[in-house]
Amino acid sequence: MASDIEIARAASMQPINEVGEKLGIPPSALENYGKTKAKVRADFIETLKDRPDGKLILVTAINPTPAGEGKTTTTVGLGDGLNRIGKKAAICLREPSLGPCFGMKGGAAGGGHAQVVPMEDINLHFTGDFHAITSAHNLLSALIDNHIYWGNELEIDPRRVVWRRVMDMNDRALRQIVCSLGGVANGFPREAGFDITVASEIMAILCLATDLDDLQRRLGDIIIGYRRDKTAVTARDLNADGAMTVLLKEAMQPNLVQTLENNPAFIHGGPFANIAHGCNSVIATQTALKLADYVVTEAGFGADLGAEKFFDIKCRKAGLEPSAAVIVATIRALKMNGGVKKDELGAENVAAVKQGCANLGRHIDNVKQFGVPVVVAINHFSGDTEAEIAAVKAYATEHGVEAVLCRHWADGSAGTEELARKVVQLVENGGAQFGPLYSDDMPLFEKIQTICRRIYRADDAAADKAVRDQLKKWTEDGFGNLPICMAKTQYSFSTDPNLRGAPTGHIVPIREVRLSAGAGFIVVICGEIMTMPGLPRVPSANHIRLDEAGLIEGLF
Amino acid sequence: MASDIEIARAASMQPINEVGEKLGIPPSALENYGKTKAKVRADFIETLKDRPDGKLILVTAINPTPAGEGKTTTTVGLGDGLNRIGKKAAICLREPSLGPCFGMKGGAAGGGHAQVVPMEDINLHFTGDFHAITSAHNLLSALIDNHIYWGNELEIDPRRVVWRRVMDMNDRALRQIVCSLGGVANGFPREAGFDITVASEIMAILCLATDLDDLQRRLGDIIIGYRRDKTAVTARDLNADGAMTVLLKEAMQPNLVQTLENNPAFIHGGPFANIAHGCNSVIATQTALKLADYVVTEAGFGADLGAEKFFDIKCRKAGLEPSAAVIVATIRALKMNGGVKKDELGAENVAAVKQGCANLGRHIDNVKQFGVPVVVAINHFSGDTEAEIAAVKAYATEHGVEAVLCRHWADGSAGTEELARKVVQLVENGGAQFGPLYSDDMPLFEKIQTICRRIYRADDAAADKAVRDQLKKWTEDGFGNLPICMAKTQYSFSTDPNLRGAPTGHIVPIREVRLSAGAGFIVVICGEIMTMPGLPRVPSANHIRLDEAGLIEGLF
Repeated sequence: MASDIEIARAASMQPINEVGEKLGIPPSALENYGKTKAKVRADFIETLKDRPDGKLILVTAINPTPAGEGKTTTTVGLGDGLNRIGKKAAICLREPSLGPCFGMKGGAAGGGHAQVVPMEDINLHFTGDFHAITSAHNLLSALIDNHIYWGNELEIDPRRVVWRRVMDMNDRALRQIVCSLGGVANGFPREAGFDITVASEIMAILCLATDLDDLQRRLGDIIIGYRRDKTAVTARDLNADGAMTVLLKEAMQPNLVQTLENNPAFIHGGPFANIAHGCNSVIATQTALKLADYVVTEAGFGADLGAEKFFDIKCRKAGLEPSAAVIVATIRALKMNGGVKKDELGAENVAAVKQGCANLGRHIDNVKQFGVPVVVAINHFSGDTEAEIAAVKAYATEHGVEAVLCRHWADGSAGTEELARKVVQLVENGGAQFGPLYSDDMPLFEKIQTICRRIYRADDAAADKAVRDQLKKWTEDGFGNLPICMAKTQYSFSTDPNLRGAPTGHIVPIREVRLSAGAGFIVVICGEIMTMPGLPRVPSANHIRLDEAGLIEGLF
Repeated sequence: MASDIEIARAASMQPINEVGEKLGIPPSALENYGKTKAKVRADFIETLKDRPDGKLILVTAINPTPAGEGKTTTTVGLGDGLNRIGKKAAICLREPSLGPCFGMKGGAAGGGHAQVVPMEDINLHFTGDFHAITSAHNLLSALIDNHIYWGNELEIDPRRVVWRRVMDMNDRALRQIVCSLGGVANGFPREAGFDITVASEIMAILCLATDLDDLQRRLGDIIIGYRRDKTAVTARDLNADGAMTVLLKEAMQPNLVQTLENNPAFIHGGPFANIAHGCNSVIATQTALKLADYVVTEAGFGADLGAEKFFDIKCRKAGLEPSAAVIVATIRALKMNGGVKKDELGAENVAAVKQGCANLGRHIDNVKQFGVPVVVAINHFSGDTEAEIAAVKAYATEHGVEAVLCRHWADGSAGTEELARKVVQLVENGGAQFGPLYSDDMPLFEKIQTICRRIYRADDAAADKAVRDQLKKWTEDGFGNLPICMAKTQYSFSTDPNLRGAPTGHIVPIREVRLSAGAGFIVVICGEIMTMPGLPRVPSANHIRLDEAGLIEGLF
């Protein structure tokens, strides 16, 4: 059995200009980064404005388990499958973060025969987007302390600076620091800290901005901190928005690469799926929709978090109208949702599969609430039995949707032909009538309650007075029309990660709310959210190196 | 009069593949970064090994003054001039740092009609080399604290960690911090800090490494800190060298761009010229020498620092044999060296020019000590008078060298034809007999004394017992054969920045010595050296933005 990296290296990549030509992108519209990566130029994207949009397909999943679901591989496989049956299709994925590659996580470019390439590049520096975000973020941080140093004309309260610094590295030592030590020349000592770059609000902004003007406006709206009277100070007040936009000019252009089957793949942006919305960039998705008849994209975590934010934040704000959704499930993950322990997944257990289907069923119902037709993709693992697969198919039918077995990991597009045909059928039936879950003008706390009740199926959301007062204050300040970005555990509909399946009767306690005024959403935090990971005892960095042929080993 | 940026934007750039073809680089050997930037592939460089080398020309200068000397413009102008007279010539420059662009410094890509383009890209993210260095550096930092966190098997003394973190940003608040605050999960609190990326030892290592194997060996040799018994812990002990090499794989490949006259320019690496050696990468210089008949390169600051380190560190270690040196002077800077104040530079003052020539004369003598023939380039400013120019020419003749007037800023290569012919004449005369100033086996303190006496013309170097003991200890540990990297003010031969001209009778006090075991030199610090700059009261970031046409304004 070939490993992911062996398969990727055996792939015959096409020059990226040829991949672009499949979508009608002329070579002059591509800024090449080596032979197999390119950015699509903003001036070309501008010319596409009046073209009709293709059909947008969301790939989402049941609640994740340690057994793995394969959302990215299914996105890649479905894109290849659509191309295989003669459709002009492209996929849109998120860019992976560099930091975690040196911890324990492998790459994030698909797997088996459903991968995007060149996978090493994609997982490391790629086209430098995350480095540009890091630079823009830390420029703003430096300008804040510099402003205070030179007299603090804006009267920023150093205790109320909320804009931290970022680094694309897992470095727990930087989570909480005291900066500006060492005397007069180094400023006023204060508490500060670093997040990982993907947690930067700038990452979310880049992924929601529709063009450079919108980017600059959003960057200017960022709230960097507060005065003693609690009035907000923005990046615009510091005259930082222009320089930050300059740093992000190239990063705003979508990246084009290819699948193992040489089909076009846009990989652009990668915000956290908890404190941010967890989708690839709007500009990549919109560009793909202008160029392809079918665009397949994914959202982070399970459908309770990822799909809800995709619909209520990304689609609402960008005016996107998804035509269908694929919910990925595996027999193994359904078994875990049905109560089976990880080391007992090898044995056939139809009863557990049936029980675990409650999780799948709830996600099906949830997605349908948004007016988007659903198909279930059963991502095949070699140990799955026919009885188990039949149980899922029967359950789906009961829920009025179809479940299709997919073998893209083993067989590439040959393994997703059926899924592709089913998706085309759903789209051509024209059943989609997309609408978000709540209206813009619903009061903020009601929006939170709506998500908790209608998506998480909780009895209610609970928040103490401070949280409610904060929401009231933001409403008075004109932020009441923003959508909600929930940050809770991805492992359960509830806030208890061990509560798999389809729990009911729970309450969702709100610990904290944060305003991302530039990204344009209110972050609602339930439980502990880590924004700067650490490295494990034996980090994979210990084993990553170039082999004698100059190839990277240990990265995957 | 057109500004630098207007001239640069009016330039007609050639596709970078065509620029590469002028040096016989096939398109397959270039990794394009957009249409006008490329990296030269390592596998192609490998095939050049057995070719003969072209001639290497160093451009250096008198001691810098606020009046400006124009070393980079002269390097560009001379390269264009050599091409103009029919020679196959390339230039090798350092990459500018991103951070200072947002402070007060403009770009660093030449000026007038002697520039390298695309200048905005070169000054901002370029091909991502500095971002890769930042990542590799901070990965090592994270691995150090992670090692301590998980039990500290290597028994690193947290008080003796000498490896800091880096950021390519002017951020004084990060100079001195306390990290790992916030409790058990965040590690053991300790004092730490950030330098700007160009001050990273990895920058120096990248610029001195001859290939990826050498790079990894040097990265492994980095001393990250000491145990309580003062024995050293290296990056290799932490198993970090392999992963760092992987992060630097692309960054090790030289970048190719072009001058305004479409001649090839390698821009690669940019180490500090005080705590490091201040030259572009060995690999870029060696590659250029295999491809061009003439290679023009520059070194940081004046000849006392830049040329000495170029000869004693870069050339010694890489086995380079420079054929000639150009010492750049301006009438204005000579006047300042002759005692004229900056606001009085407008008036003709032949006496001051003559007096300032003492500074030039000493640099001429110094460079000759290395066995390298010299020509003086008078970089013309519009206010220079004929009498002033004649005075410099006469002075040079007395010193047995020629001084040539250059007008590349105004006229491009037409303004450096005479200089180019003179350089060719020097080279063809074959007068060079390069040798470093001191031998590898000279004791470390004697090496320092030799530089102070023979280059700075000081009476002696002074160091207290702690410094001498440290040098003795390093000698016992096997580092006695390393060259010296002096870090002192660039404005004077002495350690007093106000002592212009050609001071004598001074003593050079050594404040501190540092071992850069990976880069392979001993840093000798005289006076205060700043490794993390701050931003000014009104940083240029306030004015940098995209104009309505999408062009960057305020950067230059």
